[in-house]
Amino acid sequence: MNRYIVVSSDGHAGLHAADYRPYVDAKYRDAFDIALPIQIAATKRMSDYFLITDINKEWRRGNEAELAGAWDPSARDKMLDNDGIAAEVIFPDGVTEMNAPPFGAGFGMHPEGSNSELMWAGCDAHNRFMSEFVQTAPERRIGLACIPVYWDIDLAVEKTKEAKRNGLGGVLLPPICGNFPAYHYSQYDPFWAVCQDLDMPVHFHSGPAPMQEFFGPMPPPEGQTIPEGAVGSYLMEVHFWLARPLNFMLWGGVFTRFPKLKVALTEGTSAWVPDFLERLKFFYAESREAQKLGDFQGHLAESPAETFRKNVMIGASCMSRREAEMRHEIGVHNMMWGSDYPHPEGSWPVTHQHQIDTFDGLPGDEVEAMLGGNAIEFYGLDAEKLAPIAARIGPEKGTFNETHESQENSQ
Amino acid sequence: MNRYIVVSSDGHAGLHAADYRPYVDAKYRDAFDIALPIQIAATKRMSDYFLITDINKEWRRGNEAELAGAWDPSARDKMLDNDGIAAEVIFPDGVTEMNAPPFGAGFGMHPEGSNSELMWAGCDAHNRFMSEFVQTAPERRIGLACIPVYWDIDLAVEKTKEAKRNGLGGVLLPPICGNFPAYHYSQYDPFWAVCQDLDMPVHFHSGPAPMQEFFGPMPPPEGQTIPEGAVGSYLMEVHFWLARPLNFMLWGGVFTRFPKLKVALTEGTSAWVPDFLERLKFFYAESREAQKLGDFQGHLAESPAETFRKNVMIGASCMSRREAEMRHEIGVHNMMWGSDYPHPEGSWPVTHQHQIDTFDGLPGDEVEAMLGGNAIEFYGLDAEKLAPIAARIGPEKGTFNETHESQENSQ
Repeated sequence: MNRYIVVSSDGHAGLHAADYRPYVDAKYRDAFDIALPIQIAATKRMSDYFLITDINKEWRRGNEAELAGAWDPSARDKMLDNDGIAAEVIFPDGVTEMNAPPFGAGFGMHPEGSNSELMWAGCDAHNRFMSEFVQTAPERRIGLACIPVYWDIDLAVEKTKEAKRNGLGGVLLPPICGNFPAYHYSQYDPFWAVCQDLDMPVHFHSGPAPMQEFFGPMPPPEGQTIPEGAVGSYLMEVHFWLARPLNFMLWGGVFTRFPKLKVALTEGTSAWVPDFLERLKFFYAESREAQKLGDFQGHLAESPAETFRKNVMIGASCMSRREAEMRHEIGVHNMMWGSDYPHPEGSWPVTHQHQIDTFDGLPGDEVEAMLGGNAIEFYGLDAEKLAPIAARIGPEKGTFNETHESQENSQ
Repeated sequence: MNRYIVVSSDGHAGLHAADYRPYVDAKYRDAFDIALPIQIAATKRMSDYFLITDINKEWRRGNEAELAGAWDPSARDKMLDNDGIAAEVIFPDGVTEMNAPPFGAGFGMHPEGSNSELMWAGCDAHNRFMSEFVQTAPERRIGLACIPVYWDIDLAVEKTKEAKRNGLGGVLLPPICGNFPAYHYSQYDPFWAVCQDLDMPVHFHSGPAPMQEFFGPMPPPEGQTIPEGAVGSYLMEVHFWLARPLNFMLWGGVFTRFPKLKVALTEGTSAWVPDFLERLKFFYAESREAQKLGDFQGHLAESPAETFRKNVMIGASCMSRREAEMRHEIGVHNMMWGSDYPHPEGSWPVTHQHQIDTFDGLPGDEVEAMLGGNAIEFYGLDAEKLAPIAARIGPEKGTFNETHESQENSQ
C-alpha cells in the first residue's frame, strides 16, 4: 500500500452534560437532575477562569460542523477522513464542549470531595455512551472505560470485564491518588490481573494535578483571578503528574507480576522520557546514593528501564518536531502520534501540515511506526480492516520526504 | 596559587537531640523535656524502618573521631583539612547521628501536624547552635538558618535579620508547602525582599516529600515494613520535590521583582536540570499547547531559563562523572560541588578519589569553578582569607589531569 495507516492515540468524545441523563441508572436520575445545573455552573466558571470561553469561541468559528464529532458518530467519521486518520483511541472529554460526564466522572475522577457511589454511576453513564459510540464503527474506534479503581478494586474488576464485553478497548484510571494507596501497593493486583488477562491497556491522561496548589480554591470563587505564575508552574508539572502512577507501578514490581500488562501515558509530551529513563537506570543500579536505604530492587525481574521499553507506550499527542528528533532516546517503538481532537491545542483541523512539520525527512519505517504501526501492535488492531480505510484517506507515502533506510538505534 | 580553593556546597551539623536543651528558650524547656523521649523513639523507629541503623553502624566503624565533626568544631576542621575543603555550606542534620533539632525543626519543617510556635522555638535553638558553630571558624563556614517561612512571614523577616546579625550566611526553607500557599503567591514578597537586601541566599535541600504516599503512615507503626517499590519511586521523585519551589518562584515572577535574590537547590543531583530548562523554554515561548490557558508570562521580565542562569545554583553533592560531562547543558557556572559530610551517601571520607573520578581530564578553569569558584561568587566569600587555607590543604592543580583550554559552551 502506498499510504500510511494513521492511528491517533488521543481523541476525546462525550455528550453535553444534560444528554448523559438517559445513560445514568434510573436510581441516580434524581441526583443527576439536582447536580446538573451545579455542574454546568461550575464548568462555566472554570472555563471563564481559564479564559477558555473566549479562546474557544474564536477557535470554533467555522469549525462547528466537524466539532459535532465530539458526540456525533457520522461527523466524527468525516473529521477522521479529512484528517487522514484510520482509527483512534477515545478518551472522555470535559472542557471544549462542556461535555463532562456526570458526578465528576471522566478525566480526573478526583479522589477528594467525591461521593464514590455517584462517581461509579457517572462512569457507568459515560462508559455506556462510549460503548454505543464505538459500535458505530468498531474497527476505527478504541473506546476507553473510566475506572476509578481506588474506590473499590473488586468493582473495578467487574466494570473492566463489562467494558470488554461491551466492545471497549482499554481503561482510563485516575492519576492522582490523594489519600488512597498509590499504585505500588499490591492490593491493586486483582485489577492489574484482569487488565492483563483481557488485554485491556491501562491509560493515564494528562491534566489532573493538585490544582488548588497552583490556582487556589477549585472551582474558583466568583470574581477570583488566577494567581500570577499558576499556569506556568502547572504546565511545567503536567508530565510529572501524568507519569507518577507509572513510577509507582514500575518500582512496585507490577510488571514483574503481570508481564503482559500494558500502560499508555497520553498527552504529556514525550520529551521528558529520556530523563525519566536515565533516572530509572541510575537508581536501579547499585548507586552509592541509594544504597543507604537498603534493598529496593530485589523484587524486580529486570531493570525498570527495560520494562518501560516492553510495556509502556507514550500517547504523544501533536508530537512536536523536537520529540521526533529525540525519538531514539525516547524509543521509536514507544511513541504513538495523536491528534487530540477536538481540543484547541490539538493538531485538528490542520493535522496534515502538522504531521509534515513533525516528520519531514525521517526514515519511512520509523514514521510508519509512530503514525500508526506502534498503536496497531499495542492495541492488537486488525490491520487488514484498517488497510482499505487508509487506502482511501491516509497520507501518501512520500508526503514526508521520508528516507528509506532506518536510522534506528533505540537503546 | 597551585592549589584549588574547594568549597563544599553541602555539609550537615547538629547536636544530639538532648544537647539542644540549653539552646531552647527557657519557656519551651518543659515542652522540650516532654517531647525529647518521643522524638528519640520516633527517630530510632524511622532509622530502623529504613535500615539506616545497620548501614550506619558498619559505615561508622573506624570513622568515629571525624564523625564527631557533626557537632564538634575542632573535629570538623580536621575533617575539612583531610578532605581538602577550604569552606563549606552547613545545613542541619537529622539522621546520621540522631541529631535532629527539636520539635520537628530542621530539614523538613513539615507543614502537617506541627505546632507553629514550637516549630519556631526548635528553629531558634538550631540557629543559635549554628551561629556559635560558625563563629569558631567564620571564614570556613556558611551556616544556614532554618526559616519555616509559611507559618508567619513577618516573623520570618525578623528571624532572617537576626540570622544575618549572628553571622549566618543563608536561609533554609521547607520545600513542601502542604496547605500553605506555594511560593508563587506574592504574600512572600516581604521575605524575598529581606533575603535579597541582606544577601542571604535561599536554600532548599532534598529529602522532604509527601512521604506517606510512598511509605504509608509516618512515623511507621511498630512492626511495619516498607511497601515494595516505595524506596525506588521515592528516589525517582527526590529532584522533583526539591525543584518544585523554584518552579513556583520562577513563574511567579519572584526574580522579576527581586532580581538579586539567589536560590540554591542542594543534593538532588544536577542531571535533571537540562530537561527542566528545556521545559522552561518550551512553555515560555508562545507554544500552541499552552496558549489556550491565556497569558501567563506577561509579568516576567525575561525567560525563566535565563533567570535560572543568573539567580540559581545547584548544590551538586558528590557530583557524578555523568553530571560533570553534562556540565555545559546544566550550566558550568550553576554547579557547586559538595561532599554531604557526614552522610553515608556522601564523598567523605574518600573525597579526594571521588573528585578525581568526577573531574579527570576536564578543563582547569571549569574544574576550578565547580569545585569552589562558583560558590565563592554566589556566597560572596573572601577568597583572600580562603587562599592560605587552600594553599595548605587544597588539591593541587594537575591532580585531575586538567586540560588548559576551556570547552565552555554554556547556552
